[in-house]
Amino acid sequence: MNQKKLEELLHAIRKGQLSVQEGIHRLRGLPFEDIGEAMIDHHRPLRKGFPEVIFGEGKDAEQVITIMERMAEAQDDILVTRIEEEKAKAVLQRFPQARYHPRARAITLQISEGEVKGKGVILVVSAGTSDIPVAEEAAVTATMMGNRVETIYDVGVSGVHRLLTHREKLMEAGVLIVVAGMEGALPSVVGGLVARPVIAVPTSVGYGTSFGGLTPLLAMLNSCASNVAVVNIDNGFGAGYIASLINRSQEG
Amino acid sequence: MNQKKLEELLHAIRKGQLSVQEGIHRLRGLPFEDIGEAMIDHHRPLRKGFPEVIFGEGKDAEQVITIMERMAEAQDDILVTRIEEEKAKAVLQRFPQARYHPRARAITLQISEGEVKGKGVILVVSAGTSDIPVAEEAAVTATMMGNRVETIYDVGVSGVHRLLTHREKLMEAGVLIVVAGMEGALPSVVGGLVARPVIAVPTSVGYGTSFGGLTPLLAMLNSCASNVAVVNIDNGFGAGYIASLINRSQEG
Amino acid sequence: MNQKKLEELLHAIRKGQLSVQEGIHRLRGLPFEDIGEAMIDHHRPLRKGFPEVIFGEGKDAEQVITIMERMAEAQDDILVTRIEEEKAKAVLQRFPQARYHPRARAITLQISEGEVKGKGVILVVSAGTSDIPVAEEAAVTATMMGNRVETIYDVGVSGVHRLLTHREKLMEAGVLIVVAGMEGALPSVVGGLVARPVIAVPTSVGYGTSFGGLTPLLAMLNSCASNVAVVNIDNGFGAGYIASLINRSQEG
Amino acid sequence: MNQKKLEELLHAIRKGQLSVQEGIHRLRGLPFEDIGEAMIDHHRPLRKGFPEVIFGEGKDAEQVITIMERMAEAQDDILVTRIEEEKAKAVLQRFPQARYHPRARAITLQISEGEVKGKGVILVVSAGTSDIPVAEEAAVTATMMGNRVETIYDVGVSGVHRLLTHREKLMEAGVLIVVAGMEGALPSVVGGLVARPVIAVPTSVGYGTSFGGLTPLLAMLNSCASNVAVVNIDNGFGAGYIASLINRSQEG
Amino acid sequence: MNQKKLEELLHAIRKGQLSVQEGIHRLRGLPFEDIGEAMIDHHRPLRKGFPEVIFGEGKDAEQVITIMERMAEAQDDILVTRIEEEKAKAVLQRFPQARYHPRARAITLQISEGEVKGKGVILVVSAGTSDIPVAEEAAVTATMMGNRVETIYDVGVSGVHRLLTHREKLMEAGVLIVVAGMEGALPSVVGGLVARPVIAVPTSVGYGTSFGGLTPLLAMLNSCASNVAVVNIDNGFGAGYIASLINRSQEG
Amino acid sequence: MNQKKLEELLHAIRKGQLSVQEGIHRLRGLPFEDIGEAMIDHHRPLRKGFPEVIFGEGKDAEQVITIMERMAEAQDDILVTRIEEEKAKAVLQRFPQARYHPRARAITLQISEGEVKGKGVILVVSAGTSDIPVAEEAAVTATMMGNRVETIYDVGVSGVHRLLTHREKLMEAGVLIVVAGMEGALPSVVGGLVARPVIAVPTSVGYGTSFGGLTPLLAMLNSCASNVAVVNIDNGFGAGYIASLINRSQEG
Amino acid sequence: MNQKKLEELLHAIRKGQLSVQEGIHRLRGLPFEDIGEAMIDHHRPLRKGFPEVIFGEGKDAEQVITIMERMAEAQDDILVTRIEEEKAKAVLQRFPQARYHPRARAITLQISEGEVKGKGVILVVSAGTSDIPVAEEAAVTATMMGNRVETIYDVGVSGVHRLLTHREKLMEAGVLIVVAGMEGALPSVVGGLVARPVIAVPTSVGYGTSFGGLTPLLAMLNSCASNVAVVNIDNGFGAGYIASLINRSQEG
Amino acid sequence: MNQKKLEELLHAIRKGQLSVQEGIHRLRGLPFEDIGEAMIDHHRPLRKGFPEVIFGEGKDAEQVITIMERMAEAQDDILVTRIEEEKAKAVLQRFPQARYHPRARAITLQISEGEVKGKGVILVVSAGTSDIPVAEEAAVTATMMGNRVETIYDVGVSGVHRLLTHREKLMEAGVLIVVAGMEGALPSVVGGLVARPVIAVPTSVGYGTSFGGLTPLLAMLNSCASNVAVVNIDNGFGAGYIASLINRSQEG
Repeated sequence: MNQKKLEELLHAIRKGQLSVQEGIHRLRGLPFEDIGEAMIDHHRPLRKGFPEVIFGEGKDAEQVITIMERMAEAQDDILVTRIEEEKAKAVLQRFPQARYHPRARAITLQISEGEVKGKGVILVVSAGTSDIPVAEEAAVTATMMGNRVETIYDVGVSGVHRLLTHREKLMEAGVLIVVAGMEGALPSVVGGLVARPVIAVPTSVGYGTSFGGLTPLLAMLNSCASNVAVVNIDNGFGAGYIASLINRSQEG
Repeated sequence: MNQKKLEELLHAIRKGQLSVQEGIHRLRGLPFEDIGEAMIDHHRPLRKGFPEVIFGEGKDAEQVITIMERMAEAQDDILVTRIEEEKAKAVLQRFPQARYHPRARAITLQISEGEVKGKGVILVVSAGTSDIPVAEEAAVTATMMGNRVETIYDVGVSGVHRLLTHREKLMEAGVLIVVAGMEGALPSVVGGLVARPVIAVPTSVGYGTSFGGLTPLLAMLNSCASNVAVVNIDNGFGAGYIASLINRSQEG
Repeated sequence: MNQKKLEELLHAIRKGQLSVQEGIHRLRGLPFEDIGEAMIDHHRPLRKGFPEVIFGEGKDAEQVITIMERMAEAQDDILVTRIEEEKAKAVLQRFPQARYHPRARAITLQISEGEVKGKGVILVVSAGTSDIPVAEEAAVTATMMGNRVETIYDVGVSGVHRLLTHREKLMEAGVLIVVAGMEGALPSVVGGLVARPVIAVPTSVGYGTSFGGLTPLLAMLNSCASNVAVVNIDNGFGAGYIASLINRSQEG
Repeated sequence: MNQKKLEELLHAIRKGQLSVQEGIHRLRGLPFEDIGEAMIDHHRPLRKGFPEVIFGEGKDAEQVITIMERMAEAQDDILVTRIEEEKAKAVLQRFPQARYHPRARAITLQISEGEVKGKGVILVVSAGTSDIPVAEEAAVTATMMGNRVETIYDVGVSGVHRLLTHREKLMEAGVLIVVAGMEGALPSVVGGLVARPVIAVPTSVGYGTSFGGLTPLLAMLNSCASNVAVVNIDNGFGAGYIASLINRSQEG
Repeated sequence: MNQKKLEELLHAIRKGQLSVQEGIHRLRGLPFEDIGEAMIDHHRPLRKGFPEVIFGEGKDAEQVITIMERMAEAQDDILVTRIEEEKAKAVLQRFPQARYHPRARAITLQISEGEVKGKGVILVVSAGTSDIPVAEEAAVTATMMGNRVETIYDVGVSGVHRLLTHREKLMEAGVLIVVAGMEGALPSVVGGLVARPVIAVPTSVGYGTSFGGLTPLLAMLNSCASNVAVVNIDNGFGAGYIASLINRSQEG
Repeated sequence: MNQKKLEELLHAIRKGQLSVQEGIHRLRGLPFEDIGEAMIDHHRPLRKGFPEVIFGEGKDAEQVITIMERMAEAQDDILVTRIEEEKAKAVLQRFPQARYHPRARAITLQISEGEVKGKGVILVVSAGTSDIPVAEEAAVTATMMGNRVETIYDVGVSGVHRLLTHREKLMEAGVLIVVAGMEGALPSVVGGLVARPVIAVPTSVGYGTSFGGLTPLLAMLNSCASNVAVVNIDNGFGAGYIASLINRSQEG
Repeated sequence: MNQKKLEELLHAIRKGQLSVQEGIHRLRGLPFEDIGEAMIDHHRPLRKGFPEVIFGEGKDAEQVITIMERMAEAQDDILVTRIEEEKAKAVLQRFPQARYHPRARAITLQISEGEVKGKGVILVVSAGTSDIPVAEEAAVTATMMGNRVETIYDVGVSGVHRLLTHREKLMEAGVLIVVAGMEGALPSVVGGLVARPVIAVPTSVGYGTSFGGLTPLLAMLNSCASNVAVVNIDNGFGAGYIASLINRSQEG
Repeated sequence: MNQKKLEELLHAIRKGQLSVQEGIHRLRGLPFEDIGEAMIDHHRPLRKGFPEVIFGEGKDAEQVITIMERMAEAQDDILVTRIEEEKAKAVLQRFPQARYHPRARAITLQISEGEVKGKGVILVVSAGTSDIPVAEEAAVTATMMGNRVETIYDVGVSGVHRLLTHREKLMEAGVLIVVAGMEGALPSVVGGLVARPVIAVPTSVGYGTSFGGLTPLLAMLNSCASNVAVVNIDNGFGAGYIASLINRSQEG
């Protein structure tokens, strides 16, 4: 459409039906979107291979299915986050080829071949067993975005030797996602052991002065390790997403 | 410049040196700013008559003077906010035609004729004597933006009769700016007396649980009067600015 | 009644039954409300055409109906906010001429002819789909108060081109209500595009460090655009109300 | 018991069985409670006429009944606060002479004659209809503690004339309890109108930045009226209790 | 003046120059303040004997002197709070009959005879030596307002026996002002020992998690003693003021 | 296994199959865990006699049983905290020799003989009846860890004489755990009475400005008694645990 | 004195001048302090060997000297905390035998022989160099209270191997004081390595979201190590004090 | 040294002076650091090319010089952050080959050849002129760590077209550092325009409800763009550091 308007305008100039000055005037006068849209969306293709994402919280199964149907038509890979088992069952009846990840509370529907685009391994590390849902959301996200993903769970800082036994794996990872609730100290310790970027995810796991994840968030922001950046509380998806961008080679 | 590029491109199309398809392609390829800039700045003229504003805090007299010189060349009216007397003196030596408002801690330099553009009166009301600097900043701003401005000071809610004696003036105002620290109750009381929009400005006046203005801010956001909207703590300038927009007739 | 007391008193003075001094004394002694009431309510008529508003939260259907019946007798237009579908159904059985707005969670009962009193268009803009209930509450409120209302939804700042495609509409609006959760950045971006007042409404949409809307609230209060004022979290009604006052020409 | 130990000790001294020095030594050695208890509880009788109070929240009907039975034996007046209707019904089946106050969510069981001990009237003022439960808890408490209690409800500060119509009553009260949620401004306005102590009670009524009553609490603590002191959020009982102490003549 | 307008109006009615209906109309039309002022200020005389108060913080000696001169003409007793020694010296040179209280950082100028109007003793109790300035501000205020005042200092709760040695004095007081920083526990302990009202004053004494007095404030609001009400952090003046109102017999 | 690798490596050196330099190189190259594990876990035996602990919150009965079965095989004493009665019943059907402590909401399964290892008495003191669950969790924990435990409940600071009657017991305790909600003052008072370490536990008991236990937490951190250290809100288990370590003689 | 009153009373009973009943009556009637004082201070001797402590902050050199002179007369060991070098110099001129610890900002004056009373070593561990003043305050305090004290500084969690090199020393300590700012993770890591009590001290070291030490405080309260208890921000003295109590054998 | 101990031990095994079992035993018994140190520091070389960093805040020129001298000996590149001009001058007298960056308040001393190791461009974008110091700290850090760095300053969201004119540059960057104070919205808008990782840095620029940078921090954590991760307030160094790690090719 905007393409069409532009064509007509340029044809009119070409045919001398419109002066150059008038052309400039009309180009300015053209609804912004007609040109803007065309120019702005160059980066879409850059995002190719990334799944479309549906935030499942607050949506019922019917709503999720409707959105998925529209996306599936476009042959997009689909990731649904924060969807409880009950709702997921209803969705999977409609999309039997989809898969539910109960620990991550996520549905994935892979239509592409799922080739690996990330250079290194994304390693997801978490402190307590209760942090696993957030860690798994990160892992599923990074996997869907074309990365080799490995996980190390249950390596809280009060038993630092458990963490140290995984030192090789930590040092070989290309990007690390570190998930922790309570005092949120794990990213600092991991950050000190590796020379790669660490994305820290605070979780709302804890009670009392955990304040719904505020405490690990603040601790992570004050990390004495300089290779740590932080995302929102419980935001496993965001951590998986930005880690994927970091892991992806720039030109390739 | 962007004008020039566009002209060349359209001339090339006109002369048949460039196909229409190629024209579309090049328009897309043109650096965004060349077109974007042209299209986006329509609203500048709408702002005509508004002074250019310099936030004086953290700038020394020399820096303020440099910016003012550049602006003065453009024949702009100028408003400098949050500038202490000491610095203001240095500025006024360079711009003797400027005026310092000590209570508002502001400098104004009026180059235009200062015609009144606002329809009604903007009434600035404040609770305590310590709130006056913020109230005056609002008043000076609104005056510089072409409004008739009146003020009622020292009408705190614990002596509600003092406020009520000004009831006629309150009801006749077109827009009201209500400035208060401590418990921040004045906008609610004023809001209940008038049928016009009230812009509430919390101040950092107070001690202990005033928490630097947080308490009046929260109180104003929870006002039981529905005609109250709020700006940042001590933001007299912002209140004067938005009140001026409200007071200005749209077409006229 | 108070009218009557005053009449008696003045008649007594006229007839010489009461000295002027005694009259002054008695006027002072008259219960305050008798005179106060008469003098204070001048501004009611100014509010004519505004609906009576019932805050539905925490009231059951029966209570809402009772209040509506009393209001309907007075031939008032009625707006019920924050009423869930279930309760609304019960209310509509009693008032079949009323209308339920499910997205706004509001009931309207228009008895007046609903003439347009506002000068310009009130434009309601919102960031995410979850912000729509608050945006719709604002839209329904402004409509009921006699304004032409338009809406632009789902134009979050992380896809700023979506917003820019609506630039004409944004610039033509008389007053803008901008609704956003999460980082609450939309009012700043919109505020920078237009030269009219922006009423910003933070929403409790989000999780983790959204802190129930505190984050967008703080962001909006710190807007670098000077034409933004803010109302309470989720307060769509308040935004619609003050926007209507702003949009209404003062005298005529 | 402790009486007995003391007797034995003093008899032994009298009979010369114990030296004075040894007596001093033993008095020191006596378990503290034996003497302490006797000396400390002088002020119990001063509290006579005050009801025994049961905090109903978190107790089931059975627990409340058990405690009431023990108290009733002691012929105490009883006040149960924060007890929902459902539980109250069960209690009243056991104590048919007790009375449930649904708005105050309180049960009273008056065994004494309920003579008035307070000198003046305790006036309970509240801002919105949602504040009434807290206001009523204060009123019921003060009544049970032997005071004449009057109430003025629904006089929010955004309609200050409604409050002013009650000015005589406000000025005649001996102690005032002012209950308000939202911006919590009512105590400041009332405090400015009267020359008696005002006990302010913030309520958790409101939404968004009300933060569960924190906003009115802070506003009340920052009141520009000097005759205002504050109790905990929703603490109607505490306000009624301390107001009763204030109202009670000291010697009489 | 308003007196005069009223007189003219009533004379005109009496002389038949004005109809009763017109009189009613004009009374409504009279600027509100003319009548309002007359009616509202009944309670001034009730405040007689209370000093006029100047908040010294942020005012220089010159400003304090100017205000004092105006007050002194009116033969008012004067209390200046929060004035540092340096400034006080300058003030005392102008008012040699005034007195500076260094610990309370207050100036008093007693012109009346200073008769005792309060019924009982106001007892000011404080926890640590650093709390004394706030305690003394309360004591000086209550003294200036016509009360017998006694003080007990340095009786923190971690040495509860020090407090208990003053038990007789505590129980004999008519009103108690309890000042504490740090954990703010003293009002609870004192409140449990006496049967009279306790006004609690949190102080900003402490460090770290004292948060400028927030901690003792919160502790006092959560007191398990029901006879405790709270004023703002460091608000010794406010505590002395409301304690004086409580202590004053109502009829007088 | 790591033992085995080490053995092989050292045998190879012994047999001259491996040079010393190569041995050093390989020791470095050995996966960290193989050596690290061996060296780090010296302190396990020191913990002998401490129960294994399961945090019951968020686990269903089935999960608890599975973990307990694994632990029971290892002949460990087991403590399950924060497990509701319903779930506990299911667990006890599987482990009839276990015991449920309803007030502490804990299950204990003692396999060892439960000899006393602590030197002194651990005394658990609590303020209100609602604090008892947390106090009991501390008591059960300390008992399971081999201590003599005594308790004093319902000795809030507003009735300080009730506390003082237990003074002997307080002074004889080796370690004290003091549990309090509301204003959290009890640890300060107890701390002042004794010369032993006090572990303070804030509870979430209270309402309004209790802020879920934040208020007693802050109060305890600001205790004017120097022998007080604090654990997380409602963390009865942690208090019991660290108190047991304090009470245990180091070498013995 | 109270001793004297008691003696007189008991002599009178012995001599038959006073009946036993009367004796009981008078004992009750005796001012509480006379007996209370005598009974309450049993625990003073238990504290023997502990220095008297002066909080230097906010006191000038003169005040510190005055207090020290009084203490020195009583032959007490003295510890002055939080005293800057400038003031300390003045103090040391008066007390040449005292010693200033510049890093701890403390003065000690040891009059006793300083025998070791603690059983084990108190080990003070700190994260960053900026935490050293707080760590040193703890170390000096514990030394003055009769303990062998060792320190390990600069072992932050982002270089966990630095900490691990001190593992033997960590495991041999009787009590550990762990001082950390920023993310406050060190106590968790240390707590997991040892089987002894850890007293954690958050410091105000850091910037931005450190919030003056709030972040490490919260992190420490949420430690996943169960053997950690926490004192106020920057409270090195308190940590040294309670660690000394823990380290002291009970009977011995 | 540890090397030596290991050698001796292995030689003893080789010579049969030590059994294999004894060897294992001794290896365990070896102080942890002897082996641990050797094994843990593999990753040091990976960090080669990164400057050594000195945090200048709170250190005087002398201290900075001392540390720099030690580092310079080791032929390290050096970066000193947060050092004011005054102090920097003193440092540069000692190290004339160093360079002071006044806007970044940083000193750099480049000893290596400074080859570019990062793959793409690191683009530093900032909102207001007051954010420039933090942005420059990030830029200087990233430059010192071997990256091509470009900057775009003064592109706040309230003038979104200014940002859009730089769209090409934004899209070509490999990693983006976005610095903003006030409402902190810039990272969201930038994040939506690019497909690369964005490191967001909140600044303490602002007043009132900016709360020292808390507001932009919260806004950034709640960004609706998924490619945003956040570092501490004003932490330009940290942003430059982690961006460098992201930009560095993994193998190369």
